[in-house]
Order: sequence, then C-alpha cells, then structure tokens
Amino acid sequence: MTVSINPFIAGIPTNPLRALFPYGARPSMLNLAAGHPSKDAYDLQGLAEAAARAARDFSAWTYGSSAGDPALVGALAETVATVPAGQRLLVTSGSQQGIDLAIRTFAPPGATVLVPEPVYPAVLSTCAAAGVVPVGYQIAPDDTELVGLKAVLAANRDVRALYALPTFGNPTGDTLSLAQRLQLLALCAQHDMPVIEDAPYSELWFCAPPPPSLLDLAGQVDGCTVVHLGSLSKIMSPGLRIGWLIAPERIASMMQEARQAGDLQPNALAQRVAFHYLQLGRLADHVVRVRALYADRHDALVDVLTDAGFTVPKVEGGMFIFPFLPADRGNSDLFERAIAQNVLFAPGPAFCARAGSGLFADRLRLCFAGLAKPDIVLAAKRLVAAVRT
Amino acid sequence: MTVSINPFIAGIPTNPLRALFPYGARPSMLNLAAGHPSKDAYDLQGLAEAAARAARDFSAWTYGSSAGDPALVGALAETVATVPAGQRLLVTSGSQQGIDLAIRTFAPPGATVLVPEPVYPAVLSTCAAAGVVPVGYQIAPDDTELVGLKAVLAANRDVRALYALPTFGNPTGDTLSLAQRLQLLALCAQHDMPVIEDAPYSELWFCAPPPPSLLDLAGQVDGCTVVHLGSLSKIMSPGLRIGWLIAPERIASMMQEARQAGDLQPNALAQRVAFHYLQLGRLADHVVRVRALYADRHDALVDVLTDAGFTVPKVEGGMFIFPFLPADRGNSDLFERAIAQNVLFAPGPAFCARAGSGLFADRLRLCFAGLAKPDIVLAAKRLVAAVRT
Repeated sequence: MTVSINPFIAGIPTNPLRALFPYGARPSMLNLAAGHPSKDAYDLQGLAEAAARAARDFSAWTYGSSAGDPALVGALAETVATVPAGQRLLVTSGSQQGIDLAIRTFAPPGATVLVPEPVYPAVLSTCAAAGVVPVGYQIAPDDTELVGLKAVLAANRDVRALYALPTFGNPTGDTLSLAQRLQLLALCAQHDMPVIEDAPYSELWFCAPPPPSLLDLAGQVDGCTVVHLGSLSKIMSPGLRIGWLIAPERIASMMQEARQAGDLQPNALAQRVAFHYLQLGRLADHVVRVRALYADRHDALVDVLTDAGFTVPKVEGGMFIFPFLPADRGNSDLFERAIAQNVLFAPGPAFCARAGSGLFADRLRLCFAGLAKPDIVLAAKRLVAAVRT
Repeated sequence: MTVSINPFIAGIPTNPLRALFPYGARPSMLNLAAGHPSKDAYDLQGLAEAAARAARDFSAWTYGSSAGDPALVGALAETVATVPAGQRLLVTSGSQQGIDLAIRTFAPPGATVLVPEPVYPAVLSTCAAAGVVPVGYQIAPDDTELVGLKAVLAANRDVRALYALPTFGNPTGDTLSLAQRLQLLALCAQHDMPVIEDAPYSELWFCAPPPPSLLDLAGQVDGCTVVHLGSLSKIMSPGLRIGWLIAPERIASMMQEARQAGDLQPNALAQRVAFHYLQLGRLADHVVRVRALYADRHDALVDVLTDAGFTVPKVEGGMFIFPFLPADRGNSDLFERAIAQNVLFAPGPAFCARAGSGLFADRLRLCFAGLAKPDIVLAAKRLVAAVRT
C-alpha cells in the first residue's frame, strides 16, 4: 500500500542537535553540544517539595483550561512575566510550542518568516512542518541601522513575521542593544510585521541585566505587535515543559484555539508543580546561584579557548558561545576528531538557515551550562587537542 | 497595525464542549456534559506514590527523547499497548496530539479526511488548523456492508485518511462489530487510505471486552495501514496528558519529527509518574473498579431516561450515551431550561461534522462517568424535568 504523506511533514529536516543525543550518551563523553543545564543547576530539593504539594491537588490529575491553570498564570505574572494591559498569557509546552503557535498563526503555507542566521534549528523544523519558508537575516553587533535586515526585507515578499532571539541568542549568545531593539520594532511596525520574541535565556545574565525585552519596549513604538515567549526550562526545569506566550488578546484567543486543536491543554501536573515551586519563593535565590555558576564556567571555557587561538565573541549571559576556530587550523573532520577525544560540540553549519549554504563552517556552538567547572576545563582541553590533531 | 493571520487558524471553530466549561463550574450544577472522570474514579493514593517516586528521578526534571521516555515506552508496551513488529510507539500529549500528528502527516492543506458523524468536535478543530477538509461518514449498527461510507468515498476526491473511533465512540458510545472492522480495513486498503484509530475508551467495557482493535486486525487485511492512538487519560489520569501512537516505523519517524517541531518532546515528569504508576502494578485492579463504577452509573442513568420516554441506543462501555429526546417533546430552549434546572448536557448539534447542518437536534450527549450514582440519578431527574417544562 502506498500511503500518501503531506510533503510538509515528509520534508521536515532532521534536527541536527537532537541527532547528537546518541554521542552525548556515551559514558566518557564530555558534552559541550547540548543546551542542557547540569544536574547541580537544578533545585532538586525544591522541585521535590513542589511535586509533593502538587500531588495533593486534585487539579493536578484532571482536565483544566487550555489557556493554562489560572493559579499558575497568576503566579507567572507575579514573578517572571510582565503582561501588558490588553494582552494575555497562555501557558505553553515549553517555548517550542509557543514558536510553533506563533509561526502557524501568522504565516499560512507558502508564506515567509524571517529568522536570525545562525538560527536555532528547531525553528526551521517548525517552519517546514507548517509549509512556511524561513529566510535568514543577520544583525551584527555594530549594525545599528539594521542594514542587513533591511536588505532582506527589500528582497523578500509575503513576509508574515519576524522571529527573534534578541537576548543571549542561540547559538551566538549575542544580545541586541537597546538601540537595535527600538530600530527592530520600528522597522517591523513599518512593515506591518509582528515580532515573535523568544526569550528563554533572559534571566541568565552574568554581571548586569540585559536591555528591556521587545515586549517591554513595544509600548514606545507605534503600531508594533510582539508575541513574547518565555520558559521555565532554563531557570527551573526543562522536564516540566512549562513555557508561556504573551500576545494581544485577539491573537492570544486564536492561539488558544490552535493549541486546543493540537493537544487540548497544558500538562496539569507540571503546571501544579511549577505553581507550588513559585509559591515556595525559592526561584529568585536559585536563579542567582545559576547565574554565578554559568558565569564561572563561561570564563573557564573562554580562557582555555582564547589561549589556544580561538576567537570568542563576547557574550554577557545565556548558555552558549559561538567561537571561531583558530585561523591556521583546518576544520575538516574536526567533529570526528573531537569525538575521538571524547568531547562533543555542535558544528556551526547546524545553525544555517538554509542547509548546504556553507556558512559557519569555521565556528562551533559550545554550551557552558552543562558541565561542572573541572569538566568544562577538561572538555575545552580535549577540544583544543582535537583541533591540533 | 494590521497583522495578517493565517486563515486556517482564524477559522478554527470554537470547541463547543470547552465552551460549556463555565456552566460546569457553577456550584450547584450537575454536569452530564463533560467527559471527565469523577474524583472517585482516580487512584489518587497510587498516583501520589508514583509522583513521589518520579520526583526522585533526575530524568523527571531534564530533557529527554522526543519519542518518549524509553522506560515508559517499554512499560506501555508491556501493559496497555501492543506494538506489532515493524511498528513503533511514540508517547504523545494525550491522544489529541496523536490526532493532530496523524491528520497533519497524511493530509496536506486542502485535502480531505473522513470523520465519523456525529463526531468528537476537537477533531474538527484539528482539521481546521491544518487547513484540511473534514467530511462526515456514518456507519449504522446494522450497516454491515458500510453502504454509507462507500457512498461518501464515491462522492469525494483527494481523501487522504479516515479517522475512526470504533470502540465506545464519542459521542454515540457505539462500537463497530468485528465484521464491520474487517470491512472497514478492507475498504480503506482498497482506497490506499490509512486509518487513524482513536481508542481512548477501549478498556472501559461493562460486561465483555470489545472486538479486537483495528490495529490488532490489520494483519488480517492485505495492504491496510493503521495509526493507533491510545491514552492513559480515561484509565489513569487526564491531567498527566499521556497518550501514545503506534504507527509503521517509517510513518512514526516522520511523526516524531513533526512532534519535535511542535513541542520538542513529551513531558518528562508526567512520563516518570506514568512509568512508576505502571510499575506499582495497580492499574489492572483500578480499571476493574472503574468499569464497575461506570456500568452502575450507566444503568442508573438509562433507567431514569427510558422511564421518561427517551430512546437510548444501547452501549456496552465507554463514558457516553447519545439518546433521542422523547418524540412528543419540543427541544427548543432545552439547553437553557436544563441550565435553569442545574443540569448540564452537551447538545447533539455540537457533534455535527458541518456546523449548521441541523443534524442531531433531537439528541444529546450524556456522560455517565463524571457523577456518583445518587448525583447521576438526580441529574437525570432534573433533565427529565427540563424536558417536561
């Protein structure tokens, strides 16, 4: 029997990061590829206490609102999310579900969505599944006039939305300046183009908080629409799969229907756990601890790499750096050589907006969140050894 | 600013069942509308024990496979799911996510999917969000040759899949006979049309197990493809949002990519809870208890309605009946009259495949799972009083 398959679904590219999972599972492998917090970056005691409380709530076990548990919606708005007047917060299954809902809500099949390049590759999978065409744009740190983005806008028609990860981006770790943010909002407003702001890393700053979010700034720019995506994955627990989206009421209502059509509602148990964890009042201290942990690991990693001739663009927070390999070193087979040294990284080309474009072959994404300091130094040394092989 | 919206998303019909939630929340309302198990149909002690065990597993809190926690996949296959050779089980967020994945995998925008009529309305939302056209088919209990379905097949082109809920259907409670199942598989094979078998209620039989699932029978029919959807929602806990799909390996792989594009992976915590609950070995006894509870409630509800002149098509399990109102009673304003009597039901027209078709105005869906026996008798009496007002 020949079953016919929707070409959008058949055409979803394999997620190059998830394809690395089997390597990461090898016993002596040090994993700089995965964007996963290390075990000591979880408040396991607090989570267990929250789980015990959640299990006593009947609402953890039964059906609930597709918009999210009202108690959690309230608690998020009081702690980690700011919901402007006229907007609504929906609980999502991680920010990935928010990306999917936002892209599908704005872009019908065949339309274009702009994505930063290098890009978090799961966004490309989402576009493919929706039959939407992702087109890359670049904003260099010194590009205050967004020249690159303007060129992309001039060259493309039927652009329905712009996806941005403006704070401690993935993979680059880059953060747009306040001026760039305001420019971006103005440009999108001018093109009647909503901005999908993905912000899972914003709390993970080293020395000073990042500039205000695009959502926070939207009120200063006439006519701009922002759908903001947040997540507890990087500050509480990724296994809970609790994220949220904030959107103007009318758009949020449509997204709620789309979410309901897809999987009915958020996970009731995980929502109760998140609610009780927030009620315990431990999040603020936990995040302070995680910030210090990651800053320290970042510095250790960057030191080894810089000494070995890597060029490491500066980042101010998040989980990733996206360094350039030493100029005099060939990078063919570097992935295999690194595997032989028991260190795993995410190759730069995994983050191309268009596969096979040849971009980023001289770069690699390294996560400094997943390994304790001695291991991260060892991993960096293994990587240097692989480069020098 | 005029933000452009994908017409598929803007066109998702409001789910008429979820629209009833606010009525159900009124304090003295007896709810026969919602398909929600009553509190005493949960093994809350076992679930709390499973949650305590899950909270001690680090894997409950971190990222995992998009196909599902391998331990849970194994435990499901050992207890409630049968995975034929060459097929694979993926954990989903309830069977609703399985419906969404299956419809989107087989049907591109503009194509047609056949759905039973009356239909579970969330399937229509899923079709709308995907830009897929749902067309209703009917299989009457005595329609052994599937004459109705054949007529629909003859009248429609570009049909990519058939969605079926063959066991204790929603809303009817109807179950296809063994002969009808074999006929259905043969007809679908003949049309190169995969069958999406939604089976959340199969374990909830009163006196005898239902006929084998379409998946179990597929091996007897050359050339048929079945994607089978199961769920723990009706036998363990809907708040866990744990379902599964079983599909041929090649199709399951594509569905896994689509799932990853949508929300990355199943909820890690909920999967660990489900795994530990299955390990506790309490499910079989719990399901036996739930079956008896529901059978008893069903009988009590049907007795009151039959005495009052309703015609109640016989069901052998599940959670729903779909009776006809007494022939001599007008049904205009019955919903409002019932609300005035503090009883809530789901009106028949909520289950039309095409809104405004006028079908099922003389029927209502009643759930016998959600209320204890004294309350279900009282609710039935209130409904009778509303009909007689």
